[in-house]
Amino acid sequence: MLDRKAFDSISYSIAIIGSCLDGAFRGCAVNSLQQLTSSMPAKFAVTLNKYNVTEAAVEQTGAFCATVAAADCPEAIIKLFGYKSGRVTDKFAEYDTKTDEAGCPYITEGMAVRMSFRVTQQVDLGSHVMFIAEVTEAEVLLPGAVLTVEMFKNAGKVIPANAPVYRTLDEHYGYRCTICGYVHKSDTLPDDFRCPVCKQPASKFEKL
Amino acid sequence: MLDRKAFDSISYSIAIIGSCLDGAFRGCAVNSLQQLTSSMPAKFAVTLNKYNVTEAAVEQTGAFCATVAAADCPEAIIKLFGYKSGRVTDKFAEYDTKTDEAGCPYITEGMAVRMSFRVTQQVDLGSHVMFIAEVTEAEVLLPGAVLTVEMFKNAGKVIPANAPVYRTLDEHYGYRCTICGYVHKSDTLPDDFRCPVCKQPASKFEKL
Repeated sequence: MLDRKAFDSISYSIAIIGSCLDGAFRGCAVNSLQQLTSSMPAKFAVTLNKYNVTEAAVEQTGAFCATVAAADCPEAIIKLFGYKSGRVTDKFAEYDTKTDEAGCPYITEGMAVRMSFRVTQQVDLGSHVMFIAEVTEAEVLLPGAVLTVEMFKNAGKVIPANAPVYRTLDEHYGYRCTICGYVHKSDTLPDDFRCPVCKQPASKFEKL
Repeated sequence: MLDRKAFDSISYSIAIIGSCLDGAFRGCAVNSLQQLTSSMPAKFAVTLNKYNVTEAAVEQTGAFCATVAAADCPEAIIKLFGYKSGRVTDKFAEYDTKTDEAGCPYITEGMAVRMSFRVTQQVDLGSHVMFIAEVTEAEVLLPGAVLTVEMFKNAGKVIPANAPVYRTLDEHYGYRCTICGYVHKSDTLPDDFRCPVCKQPASKFEKL
C-alpha cells in the first residue's frame, strides 16, 4: 500500500531562506528547515527545489539566513516568499530588510527567530538539493508560537508547487512552468495561459 | 550573536523508527523525519544519533519503518521508545508489533500513519547519521492531528539526550553515558550513580 495522504501528517515549520546571487538578494519560503545535530556548531539542513532562484543563490554564496515565521505572520509575507518567483519580483524590496554578517538578507516582520548558516555539505536529491550547514548566528526576534504548514493549510491556503511536501496525484501529467516550477494539471494549455504563480506566458511551460 | 534558544522555535513531529539488527527488532523515537522531495518515489530523511542501536540497525538493514505519533499517543509509548535503550530493553516486545514487507517492525497503538523506506543515501554528520530514503509503503492509521515536540514539552516532558534538538549549554561539560548518550551535567559523578535513562552504572560514563 502506498497512500500519499500519509505524507501529509508530518508537522513542519515555515521559514524564509535568504541568500545572494550575483550581488542581488534572493529568498523563498520553505517547510524544510531542520536541526540535525546539537553539538556546537549545531548542524541544520534546508532542502530547496532546483527551480527556485534561492537554490542557485545558496549554492553560489555558500551561506544563507533563515527566519522562522511567527504564528501570526501576515499572509502577504508567506504568499510573497512562497508563491512569487525571484526571477520576476525583488521580494526583499517590499519589506524592511537587514543583512547578517555574511551579507545574507532577512526580514524581521512576522518572524519569530533568525539564524544564519555556513554550508558544509550539499546533497543532490534530483528535483531538490539539500544543504547541510553550521549555524553561525542565532537570535530570538519574537518569543512565542511559530507558523506550521498545518496552520497555513487550515487557513485555506495551498502549498507552493516547489515545496518538498507539494502533492500531485500524477507527477507525469500536466504542464510545468519552467520559470517557477508551478504545475498546471490539465490535458491542454491555452495559448493565452499565464502562470498563476509567476505570471509567465504559456510558452514558458513544458509538457510533463 | 548566537542564542541557542532560537533553535527551539522550529516545530517537529515525533516519529518512531523501527528496523532490524542481527535479526532483532530495534527502534527509537525521533523528531527528525522529514519529506525531502515529492516526485515519486518521494524521498524522506531521518537523522539518528550514532549512540542509538537503531542507527546501527538502519545501516545494516538499509530499510526502516516510520510511524508518526498521533496527538493523543500514550506518554508511555514515547517514553519507552525515546528514553530507554534498545541495549537493555526489547521495546517492541511491550506492544502489539507488525512488520512491513521488508520485515521492519512498527506498532500501531497511538500512531497516526505508517510509512516504510529503503535507504538510498547516507550522510555522516559527526554525532548523527542522516539516512535519505525512498518511500515504499504508506498508510493512514488514524486520521487527525499528530504529536509535536512542542506539545510534548508543554506537557512537562523533556527531550531525550540523543535527539538532534537536545540542548546543552556546554557540550564539553559533564559525563556522558556511553550506552545511551545521556549527559549528566555535573563536575563530579558519584560511584553509585546510575543513568536515569538506561540505568547503566557510573562505570559506563565518560567525562566530556
